[in-house]
Amino acid sequence: METIVVKVDSSSLTTPERIDKIADRILEHKHKGKHPVVVVPSIELLEGNFLPYPSIFNEKIANRESHVLKAINTHVASSLLAIVIERKGHKAISLSGWQAGIEVSKSNGNVLIELIHHDLILERIQNGDIAIVAGSQGYDENKDLLTLGEGGPETTAVAIGAAIGAEYIEILTEQDGIYTADCSIVNEARKLKEVTYDEMLELAHLGSTYLHPRAVELAKIYEMRIAVRSSTNNVEGTWIKGEVEMEKNRVVRGVAYEADIIRLTVAFESYENSSLANIFMTLAKHHIDVDIIVQAVIDGVKPTVSFSIAKEDFAEAIKVLEKSKAQLGFSFADFEVGLAKVSIVGSGMVSNPGVAAQMFDRLRKENILVKMVSTSEIKVSVVVPQDEMVRAANVLHDEFQLVEEYVN
Amino acid sequence: METIVVKVDSSSLTTPERIDKIADRILEHKHKGKHPVVVVPSIELLEGNFLPYPSIFNEKIANRESHVLKAINTHVASSLLAIVIERKGHKAISLSGWQAGIEVSKSNGNVLIELIHHDLILERIQNGDIAIVAGSQGYDENKDLLTLGEGGPETTAVAIGAAIGAEYIEILTEQDGIYTADCSIVNEARKLKEVTYDEMLELAHLGSTYLHPRAVELAKIYEMRIAVRSSTNNVEGTWIKGEVEMEKNRVVRGVAYEADIIRLTVAFESYENSSLANIFMTLAKHHIDVDIIVQAVIDGVKPTVSFSIAKEDFAEAIKVLEKSKAQLGFSFADFEVGLAKVSIVGSGMVSNPGVAAQMFDRLRKENILVKMVSTSEIKVSVVVPQDEMVRAANVLHDEFQLVEEYVN
Repeated sequence: METIVVKVDSSSLTTPERIDKIADRILEHKHKGKHPVVVVPSIELLEGNFLPYPSIFNEKIANRESHVLKAINTHVASSLLAIVIERKGHKAISLSGWQAGIEVSKSNGNVLIELIHHDLILERIQNGDIAIVAGSQGYDENKDLLTLGEGGPETTAVAIGAAIGAEYIEILTEQDGIYTADCSIVNEARKLKEVTYDEMLELAHLGSTYLHPRAVELAKIYEMRIAVRSSTNNVEGTWIKGEVEMEKNRVVRGVAYEADIIRLTVAFESYENSSLANIFMTLAKHHIDVDIIVQAVIDGVKPTVSFSIAKEDFAEAIKVLEKSKAQLGFSFADFEVGLAKVSIVGSGMVSNPGVAAQMFDRLRKENILVKMVSTSEIKVSVVVPQDEMVRAANVLHDEFQLVEEYVN
Repeated sequence: METIVVKVDSSSLTTPERIDKIADRILEHKHKGKHPVVVVPSIELLEGNFLPYPSIFNEKIANRESHVLKAINTHVASSLLAIVIERKGHKAISLSGWQAGIEVSKSNGNVLIELIHHDLILERIQNGDIAIVAGSQGYDENKDLLTLGEGGPETTAVAIGAAIGAEYIEILTEQDGIYTADCSIVNEARKLKEVTYDEMLELAHLGSTYLHPRAVELAKIYEMRIAVRSSTNNVEGTWIKGEVEMEKNRVVRGVAYEADIIRLTVAFESYENSSLANIFMTLAKHHIDVDIIVQAVIDGVKPTVSFSIAKEDFAEAIKVLEKSKAQLGFSFADFEVGLAKVSIVGSGMVSNPGVAAQMFDRLRKENILVKMVSTSEIKVSVVVPQDEMVRAANVLHDEFQLVEEYVN
């Protein structure tokens, strides 16, 4: 029997009525002759009204037990959903990460899926049970419970899908698909019928909140198709897959943006002294993400390097750089706040060198100042004044005729 | 390092203040150079105020998920206790039944401990962690979570103690030890310093609520000493062990009672037709516990068999017997309600044949009518009118000089 892994969103579990609805939604697959395996997101049942002993829970909880309680919470949620599906007359069972055979490991503070003992879920399927897996958790070599952090539930869904050879992954979300741009700032944004893994990765990295890049990366490796669909409206969503067949001729597929960017520029006394690697390693050690990097070496002028960081990292970055200034041999040249990043994304760019030029040209025509530029094979990002971000996104959406994209 | 398994009572987990107190109590062992392993009882955190989605939880929950939720509840409780101990500066970790390596199996609706993978807890101990085990749960061969039912937490504690070679098991309870009789009906009842496994088994079966017989049986098999102590007052409790050294000369060690007994009598048409085995097998199949059985075969009189059952089983027993009457070849002769059972217990009885006689004599002198009698090697039980139960318990407590017993 064909299996499908369905990842439920947290908002579908907030009331008994919603749980009831999402149960029906899951059962639709069953009625169509497919066997659904469900992944429940990490939710915090023990918080709020359900909090026992607030005086114990509200203080900071040491790391190990914090993972334990998060994992338990999600297991309760999966049990709730199993109970509701069972009341509708179908065999359903909750599975913790351990019961689903999800082995994880910790490296550099991140919890990663190591291995899925797929026979465990397959046995449940063969037994006719709808397995409701508590997502975003697993067990390590010491049998300790660990939770996966950001993007964990989607990543769990993709990993399970790959392990059991599912037909595809259905990601149910509050949005009904992937759009050419954020609807809240680009009125003309259209839902995409299909998008490639790479495009989705760029969109995710560029601030789209649909799906964590971690899950998309895994799906790409295992060539696991993902359908992003609304959890409330049963309409066609967007397929994420390896190749987009129907619009290969479409170069740009989406516009993304990221507000509150800061540009930092440092100058070196001489080219010989400049150690870019040291600067960025120092920043990385303090968990400061550097995005666009632009280096300028002009004869007769001190070499400089500019890079963009998120607003919330600004204070920390200044502190870290000040401290290591003498050692790394540079001085601050400049910084600029009130910036934003706007990007165009599309797999077709690889073979279309004119796309960046077309982008810059339109921005120039619109009198939008480009402060920094960064390109990859399937994306061009520009840093513009924050005030111009929305307008830039809209004119680029227009420029690349995304409004004509369609679908549904 | 010597390890001790401490089984906490549920009342010690009902408020943050009590959790704090019981944490201190556990740490006292640590301060004395012993390493405590803690077993937490099954508690129902998700009930009452902590109940999410009452409309889902309040309906009857199918068997599998009901076990899951019970197991999860107890895991939360163990995590709470671990958090509190850790805040006091000691390494503590919660362990689910699975993490503690407790393998269980289901037979005839009962969940039994099959095996404890003791290396798991031993590794934690060697790491310096105080393991807080969620009691009364384990996993079966399908990795399903199962809870142990009545007496589960104490049984888990004893099983873990046996598996890791603990020095002894400390059972913390609301009572501060085992008494010669129930203090609420025998004013003169005294706390016992020591009691044998067999005596404790009889006391437990005879209505003492201190400790489930299942745990005592396991302790007896593994010769694991148990200390029953108060969870609130740190005073000497009662030791349960193989041999009681100090009062070997004491014949009777305790008086127990059980109210609301009903006697049923059935008559057979002829001795040839009577099938006792069939009657009791039929009752057992319907989960009706039969206690004392008295068979009378008198020449010229129809053979009869009388037996006692608990009040709550009466209606069901009548129904079951009526149904199988023709097939089993008997007719009802009689039944009597408003009875109670009073027992004396003591390992010394084996070699003291006069004890039962002394008991009957005293009851006769007190004009207490004995309706049925049952004896074992270490116990004599009599069925008396319910109205006389308290007086019977008191006069027997006096007769066998239990008031002189001592201790603390």
